[in-house]
Amino acid sequence: DAAGAQAHPCFGAVIFSRPSILQSVAEAVKESLDNFLVSVQIDEEVAKLLQLKAQLGGEDGKHQFVLKTPKGTRDYNPKQMAIREKVFNTIISCFKRHGAETIDTPVFELKETLTGKYGEDSKLIYDLKDQGGELLSLRYDLTVPFARYLAMNKITNIKRYHIAKVYRRDNPAMTRGRYREFYQCDFDIAGQYDAMIPDAECLKIVHEILSELQLGEFCIKVNDRRILDGMFAVCGVPDEKFRTICSTVDKLDKMSWEDVKKEMVNEKGLSEEAADQIGEYVSMRGGMDLAERLLQDQKMCQNKQACAGLSDIKLLFSYLQLFQVTDKVVFDLSLARGLDYYTGVIYEAVLTQAGLPPLANDSQNGASSEESAGVGSVAGGGRYDGLVGMFDPKGRKVPCVGVSIGIERIFSIMEQKAEASAEKVRTTEVQVMVASAQKNLLEERLRLVTELWSAGIKAEVMYKKNPKLLSQLQHCEEGGVPLVAILGEQELKDGVVKLRVVSTREEVDISRADLIAEIKRRTSEA
Amino acid sequence: DAAGAQAHPCFGAVIFSRPSILQSVAEAVKESLDNFLVSVQIDEEVAKLLQLKAQLGGEDGKHQFVLKTPKGTRDYNPKQMAIREKVFNTIISCFKRHGAETIDTPVFELKETLTGKYGEDSKLIYDLKDQGGELLSLRYDLTVPFARYLAMNKITNIKRYHIAKVYRRDNPAMTRGRYREFYQCDFDIAGQYDAMIPDAECLKIVHEILSELQLGEFCIKVNDRRILDGMFAVCGVPDEKFRTICSTVDKLDKMSWEDVKKEMVNEKGLSEEAADQIGEYVSMRGGMDLAERLLQDQKMCQNKQACAGLSDIKLLFSYLQLFQVTDKVVFDLSLARGLDYYTGVIYEAVLTQAGLPPLANDSQNGASSEESAGVGSVAGGGRYDGLVGMFDPKGRKVPCVGVSIGIERIFSIMEQKAEASAEKVRTTEVQVMVASAQKNLLEERLRLVTELWSAGIKAEVMYKKNPKLLSQLQHCEEGGVPLVAILGEQELKDGVVKLRVVSTREEVDISRADLIAEIKRRTSEA
Repeated sequence: DAAGAQAHPCFGAVIFSRPSILQSVAEAVKESLDNFLVSVQIDEEVAKLLQLKAQLGGEDGKHQFVLKTPKGTRDYNPKQMAIREKVFNTIISCFKRHGAETIDTPVFELKETLTGKYGEDSKLIYDLKDQGGELLSLRYDLTVPFARYLAMNKITNIKRYHIAKVYRRDNPAMTRGRYREFYQCDFDIAGQYDAMIPDAECLKIVHEILSELQLGEFCIKVNDRRILDGMFAVCGVPDEKFRTICSTVDKLDKMSWEDVKKEMVNEKGLSEEAADQIGEYVSMRGGMDLAERLLQDQKMCQNKQACAGLSDIKLLFSYLQLFQVTDKVVFDLSLARGLDYYTGVIYEAVLTQAGLPPLANDSQNGASSEESAGVGSVAGGGRYDGLVGMFDPKGRKVPCVGVSIGIERIFSIMEQKAEASAEKVRTTEVQVMVASAQKNLLEERLRLVTELWSAGIKAEVMYKKNPKLLSQLQHCEEGGVPLVAILGEQELKDGVVKLRVVSTREEVDISRADLIAEIKRRTSEA
Repeated sequence: DAAGAQAHPCFGAVIFSRPSILQSVAEAVKESLDNFLVSVQIDEEVAKLLQLKAQLGGEDGKHQFVLKTPKGTRDYNPKQMAIREKVFNTIISCFKRHGAETIDTPVFELKETLTGKYGEDSKLIYDLKDQGGELLSLRYDLTVPFARYLAMNKITNIKRYHIAKVYRRDNPAMTRGRYREFYQCDFDIAGQYDAMIPDAECLKIVHEILSELQLGEFCIKVNDRRILDGMFAVCGVPDEKFRTICSTVDKLDKMSWEDVKKEMVNEKGLSEEAADQIGEYVSMRGGMDLAERLLQDQKMCQNKQACAGLSDIKLLFSYLQLFQVTDKVVFDLSLARGLDYYTGVIYEAVLTQAGLPPLANDSQNGASSEESAGVGSVAGGGRYDGLVGMFDPKGRKVPCVGVSIGIERIFSIMEQKAEASAEKVRTTEVQVMVASAQKNLLEERLRLVTELWSAGIKAEVMYKKNPKLLSQLQHCEEGGVPLVAILGEQELKDGVVKLRVVSTREEVDISRADLIAEIKRRTSEA
């Protein structure tokens, strides 16, 4: 049926089910027409009322704009951008330290490129209007465009990062950093390599980034799709229910086991017995020892897939020891991750320490303490060996493993930290303002600021012919500009500039010839 | 009428014309339904044929993906990204040197935010599909979102830059750097200031950026909307034809005067006499002297608007002299610029020196030499004092002036330069590869690379248990990695690492304790 064709990456089905899709489309059109006719009537009434309002209500008939950004999106103001830049620099430095290149892809893809990649989440994709030409959708993540890029360019080896915005028509929870437009910072390694070496480096990178950003305690959960599938098999889950049961297990970080079980049994039609057996496994967490123990587990050891996964977890932990990151990594059988494309190791990093009180907005909205900005998932990823093959005309596979840093949540935390800290966030890097205390010196100010710019000094003048000295100094205090170069008749006559240190209010006369060197000396100190 | 309501920023009209819009919509729906029914039949036939092909043609019935990016868009590969990063760094440094903050806005806006801002170009806006909720469009430029941001946050003073992608359903000409998705780099100054000081700084910034990027000779054309309007008035153009005649004048950089005149007379219904008078003016170019001359012009001096514009051009040139940029700036009465929102000074920078031969693709496509990648418009902007007021509920104005750097064309030129140059573009910053010549040293390699990462050194290992030394060295030569740290049984015993300089093949043993300092010394030299 049509729904099935959409959910599965089995493209043959799309063709065979075309007639039934057409029927649904025709019905949908009929329904929209009905809706349209009703909405036409409503719109006409609204228009009349607005017209009436305009005639009565002054405002000279002007249409009132709704001044807002689209639902689930936000602007970044200069302060937020300064914080964002700092976070990006930390992350990009880490990616570069590990030898990654970077690529970029368009914000939209052909609609069919995204079809059949996201399972139940496909409904959250933003489509563009059909304005003639190709059908397009906004990218939902950076992984599918990456796979499309590899297949299209026949690339079999690359270590790349990609930082860009992605789009999901999800229910926004913006105070906790969940948006409909948000950044992803992805690092992926593609290529046929020996087991678990690139996988371990991805975890090393998460460890480095979260440590350097000083977000408080964190923990990286690790599991493997093959272990999950093996577990489902030995617990008696029918093959065709693996994916949907996996989606339910994925909710364990937000729901209690009781509720998860209820969903399995009541909604997904799993037997109570199978659910209980799953319940036992998904409560297990540990390290390499747990993997060893499960390799001896009577049921698990009979499943080939599970054994392969467990052996790889063991190997992974041995590399993680060499990378010195086992302190934060936990093998956790409850970790599932929703996306369809994972085939091996999966992982997710969570902040465990509520370093900061929840935002005022959050408690107003009745958010529970688990949902405060300081706690929750901040990175995730895994191995997806089949995705590139879905794009290759001959189905050639390129094994891939990667991680995505959930940067919006990190921004939220850093913003709160900045809010709470006494230190002011500077939004410009201006080193010196060229000012004057007297009138008619605009030309002299422009001449001097030109000299400074030529020397690579970050400098400003106020765009007034005769600004007040006080307002020039105030501008510096507010913006954190450390120095003021003050020109006056006397200074011009003497061939000097009065250099004022904003924080101490100290003033010294510096000869024009020495000014640039003196500014550089003073600002490199800081 | 409905068309008029769309083209003019007069929102009252939208309400009053609603019923007629509804009629057109209903007709459009009817037409689409007819089209739909036809396309349903076609689709059914196509589906049948595909089904038949799948049954006959092997390929096990798999749907063949079209592996491409959407029309008019492109991926950036790592080499292109390295060039892009360099260009961005130059531009951002300049913006920061001039004291700018930065902001970001969502990639889409409410559709009504963009309505009535772009005149005849509105048809190029990408709309999102109505999936329930708000009607959205992809941003067409960064200026309108900036104005929306100012009005929404009641900001009356800001100097900001914004670098982001914008979207236009235009006819792509990708070999010449014209895309449907492309970057804009905008710098704008908002605030009530003394005349022409911020305007002059915008031109100074264009001058600095184009000089630093070393793109060859360039010229910055300057004009003023008030001079254009005044000129149209004194030439006898009817008021209601100002904008459309302005659009035609704007084509003078691509069309001959004869063709422009034809369009004015035949398509826009202007009298031949008026067109000829315009023709005389738009052939004029000069500097401050031309502004002075036109202030004495019998016809021009009678028009208040023209006089105000001409006086401001004079003042502008006096500031440009202090900024030392008059060598490249030309007052050119043929410069019009298409967008509706400009109210004062306008400018455009063009590259005048075809520093490079046109791309092979270009000549294949029969592009004329004027359209080679080395020549053409690379920056533009102007003053738009009314735009923010269009968003403010009370119509409060915030005067603005800004410039947009046409970065895609610059990328194209830099790419060609890199292509032509002998120097290799590095796509990573790796300083050292940790390698081994012998088997079974994976653990030792991982241990050493962990040490290097901890010390902030950019380092790599190959993801193989036993890679060949040759393939490790080859990787370094290809990627421009300057150093290799080679481990072997003997080195481990001696507590040293063999450090190899890739370019010279020189090798020295360095004690483990000194390794980090040695790598830092050698890579900071380079």
